[in-house]
Amino acid sequence: MERQDHNKYIRRCFELAKQGAGSVSPNPMVGSVIVKNGNIIGEGFHSKFGLPHAEPEAINNCKEDLEGSTLYCNLEPCSHTDKKTPPCVPLIITSGIKKVVISNIDPNPKVSGRGIQQLRSAGIEVVEGVLDEEGNYLNRFFFKYIKAHTPYVTLKIAQSIDNFISKSSDEQTWLTGKESKKYVHHLRSFYDAVLVGANTIKVDNPLLNVRLAEGRDPKIIILDGKLSLLENSSIVKNGNALIVTSKLSDAKKKKRLTKLGIDILEFDTDADSIINIKDMLKKVGEMGTNSILVEGGAEIFSQFISEKLFDELIILTAPVILGTGLSGFRALPETKLKLHENFQIEGDQVSIYLV
Amino acid sequence: MERQDHNKYIRRCFELAKQGAGSVSPNPMVGSVIVKNGNIIGEGFHSKFGLPHAEPEAINNCKEDLEGSTLYCNLEPCSHTDKKTPPCVPLIITSGIKKVVISNIDPNPKVSGRGIQQLRSAGIEVVEGVLDEEGNYLNRFFFKYIKAHTPYVTLKIAQSIDNFISKSSDEQTWLTGKESKKYVHHLRSFYDAVLVGANTIKVDNPLLNVRLAEGRDPKIIILDGKLSLLENSSIVKNGNALIVTSKLSDAKKKKRLTKLGIDILEFDTDADSIINIKDMLKKVGEMGTNSILVEGGAEIFSQFISEKLFDELIILTAPVILGTGLSGFRALPETKLKLHENFQIEGDQVSIYLV
Repeated sequence: MERQDHNKYIRRCFELAKQGAGSVSPNPMVGSVIVKNGNIIGEGFHSKFGLPHAEPEAINNCKEDLEGSTLYCNLEPCSHTDKKTPPCVPLIITSGIKKVVISNIDPNPKVSGRGIQQLRSAGIEVVEGVLDEEGNYLNRFFFKYIKAHTPYVTLKIAQSIDNFISKSSDEQTWLTGKESKKYVHHLRSFYDAVLVGANTIKVDNPLLNVRLAEGRDPKIIILDGKLSLLENSSIVKNGNALIVTSKLSDAKKKKRLTKLGIDILEFDTDADSIINIKDMLKKVGEMGTNSILVEGGAEIFSQFISEKLFDELIILTAPVILGTGLSGFRALPETKLKLHENFQIEGDQVSIYLV
Repeated sequence: MERQDHNKYIRRCFELAKQGAGSVSPNPMVGSVIVKNGNIIGEGFHSKFGLPHAEPEAINNCKEDLEGSTLYCNLEPCSHTDKKTPPCVPLIITSGIKKVVISNIDPNPKVSGRGIQQLRSAGIEVVEGVLDEEGNYLNRFFFKYIKAHTPYVTLKIAQSIDNFISKSSDEQTWLTGKESKKYVHHLRSFYDAVLVGANTIKVDNPLLNVRLAEGRDPKIIILDGKLSLLENSSIVKNGNALIVTSKLSDAKKKKRLTKLGIDILEFDTDADSIINIKDMLKKVGEMGTNSILVEGGAEIFSQFISEKLFDELIILTAPVILGTGLSGFRALPETKLKLHENFQIEGDQVSIYLV
């Protein structure tokens, strides 16, 4: 019975936490609920990077006395002080809360169990690990980033039943439907950045924003070792992108692009100008990007898969057999994944795999 | 309210009807429910080809007086007499039933609305078309067969995420899991026949029965224009298959196979011995087969898809990227399908497409 209540209130924390999606990065999404005598007396969530955490929000939203209440929170309350907001643990200890129930331990080495320890030392009962798998999935960007210091990478491929992403490499083919397009825009709003190759810009001339959904636009990263990007593409004209290129590529073009407001990130490469993706992810991670949605094209997908530099693969399959075209990826060696979820959007199939 | 009741009882008819799956072919699956004063007073279903229809079963199972009751049945009651069992309409008319609710009209040209007409002429109210799409899907084998006189063809492909059905054309690769294997055996129990090419027999040496599920084994059809089938394969040794081959193929081998109990069906072909699938389906249909589950290999799938001689495509996708191997099919021209259903079986993805 108690476990059922714990699940119920931690699920509510997840719901609240999600309201910070896209705004709290590189922080985790956190929600908190305070319960007394079987009633929720306060709720809160971390709404934006730099603003208060979920726990003080919930505490401040309480209209009743907190004495003897239970605080639910999907992440261990923080105990460290070298950051924008004061730590949550001392506030909880002095609030009258007698019990704290959490889903995940904060993997931040500055917390990592210390928050729980301090609560217990102060005589507060702590229950941990409630729905921890769901909690891990909710904050997968944060957990990856804080452990590996590189962004969580999701590959998003829209394809035919026979794995073709377009009819040919120089032709844009719309395979999936309108609702799937909205879904992709919705996805983008959760990621710090979207990444595409220069050929995708050339063929599709995309905007890569979230105009069909709510939320903020992600940063745009263009992987373009040879700097072959067309200067009249919409993204370049908007002056809003980070181009990752070789130190060997055209210096004059770099200057022109910089003048338009485009950021350039240069790497040492061999004469073939192929960017080492691992180095790129490390650097982009250092720049504060905790999550990237990779949207193509085929060569880019193949590189990420072959080097196993991805965490999630989302395949949208349109209900059509093309028969011929450009394959979404060809990548060795064999890679085992885990099917996390599959569902339909207006006749398209969505399959979400985790590494 | 009345429509809700109709849906509820017609759904019950579908459930009852399914109990005849695999046993009633080439007849449709039919269930019937009799309702009086809001209570079910009798149920029945067509259990086996040659045995009574659902309606007399339901009527005979009634323990109460039928006067003023409503009969639900997923298919229009039959009115024709040139068959194994007496027609249902006269029995209904004399039973005291005042109302009949059905899902689908019987497409059999000998019935096709005549059953409904006769009921109405006798003063019985008839409601038709309740959940008719679901009814159409339930009896898709029957509807196809009675209209086209050829079997309903389903292609079942087990593959990797990147569309490979095995690591190479001469090596068996188990991609999907144990529960998916059980699901395939369950599928087989619904079909009159399974069909494979000779190379699948050579590489996999399968039994193609339903040993992991309940139900009866389907007939086995082997498409083998050149008669290259290995005589020491399990299926040949069991003496239980129909081999479809060219008139040009080895006459002595045909004799040896016939002695083992194997049936041979011969077709005129060019020197390349490739069987015309349309002709084959026509002939097999004439022999009473209303449904075929095509299980491989790649050349067979490609032929059926290219010639658009299939009604349903079931893809089981294992959560693995192989990187290289034998593609499940390569088929032109472009073919649009409809995603009917998708779900998971123990980490494998099942996608059911309809043509």
